[in-house]
Amino acid sequence: MKIITKELKFATQGHTDILNVTDDVRQELKTAGLKQGVIFLFVVGSTAGITTTEFEPGLESDLKRFFEKIIPSRVSYAHDETWGDANGFSHLRASLLKPSLTVPFVKGDLVLGTWQQIVLIDFDNRPRDRRLVVQLQGE
Amino acid sequence: MKIITKELKFATQGHTDILNVTDDVRQELKTAGLKQGVIFLFVVGSTAGITTTEFEPGLESDLKRFFEKIIPSRVSYAHDETWGDANGFSHLRASLLKPSLTVPFVKGDLVLGTWQQIVLIDFDNRPRDRRLVVQLQGE
Amino acid sequence: MKIITKELKFATQGHTDILNVTDDVRQELKTAGLKQGVIFLFVVGSTAGITTTEFEPGLESDLKRFFEKIIPSRVSYAHDETWGDANGFSHLRASLLKPSLTVPFVKGDLVLGTWQQIVLIDFDNRPRDRRLVVQLQGE
Repeated sequence: MKIITKELKFATQGHTDILNVTDDVRQELKTAGLKQGVIFLFVVGSTAGITTTEFEPGLESDLKRFFEKIIPSRVSYAHDETWGDANGFSHLRASLLKPSLTVPFVKGDLVLGTWQQIVLIDFDNRPRDRRLVVQLQGE
Repeated sequence: MKIITKELKFATQGHTDILNVTDDVRQELKTAGLKQGVIFLFVVGSTAGITTTEFEPGLESDLKRFFEKIIPSRVSYAHDETWGDANGFSHLRASLLKPSLTVPFVKGDLVLGTWQQIVLIDFDNRPRDRRLVVQLQGE
Repeated sequence: MKIITKELKFATQGHTDILNVTDDVRQELKTAGLKQGVIFLFVVGSTAGITTTEFEPGLESDLKRFFEKIIPSRVSYAHDETWGDANGFSHLRASLLKPSLTVPFVKGDLVLGTWQQIVLIDFDNRPRDRRLVVQLQGE
């Protein structure tokens, strides 16, 4: 049983920027050479989240529209009054989606579906350098 | 410290079909004979999710109504234009709920509340054969 | 590789009470003395959830307003007709946010961002004594 912790870095555009990080995560698994276990993903910061989706331009735009509908960017939030950084909506979206995702692997590969990709979503209102912690536990 | 990976299969009706999988998961723990550790659940595919709820008919209907309210099935999504499979709403709901859930166990039993069940929700717009990966790590 | 399971208790006010549990979780890690691994958090019960946020009064009120908007407390749910306990909205909010969060640690500290705290949110319609299971796996 081994534990390996890595950190991946991504430059994002913010504004619900959706990044397909599947290949990067898969590469870490390949490098580690583990066969059975689990990968813990955790995006650092309180204005980003992580989930899975079929990564294609239609759903990218659908996801952006959905988050804009339930947590609009153009209204005022109490958080904005506290700090004046105008990204209250980014925080709410991130708390809803959450920063962690856990994906098991068997026979050396992630158990994702054929059309299922891992996406990091940056909800902030400006470009950011994001850190994604990737911890592998397995054998 | 042992790692055991199993796969459970469920035939669903789609259309936000809510399946109580608690007994199946508990059975895997019993079969494994582990006393302390964690179970990783991951539903394969990008149109299903997993969470917990008090599983009773009232909440089943409340959950269906809630997802229909925030992500309606009868409007058009960009994803539908890409593929013509008309399940854009299924993808959005699944990305929101996410495919993974992690439940610790102690003294050989899951730490769920008395009225807390694990449910797999299939958001697709047709019946599906779903695979739920169940990985146990513990001692 | 060690597994340690602890249980933290919190008296909450219900009504989307948001508790910053970061220091309590960090203390468990310090006591365990582990350097690299992962902490599994699981709040027991079907009317509470767990996520991360920048914990400050503005976002606290924004989060409460957000949950009230998408899952209002003052409308009737089918669950309420089943049990008469009038907390259908609490269940829906909890199923949406989910009871589990997984946070890796390296060099003996959680990989949280500077302004990112772990919060337990109690959605029930009355004060509750909540149990938060904290399981550490690592070395």
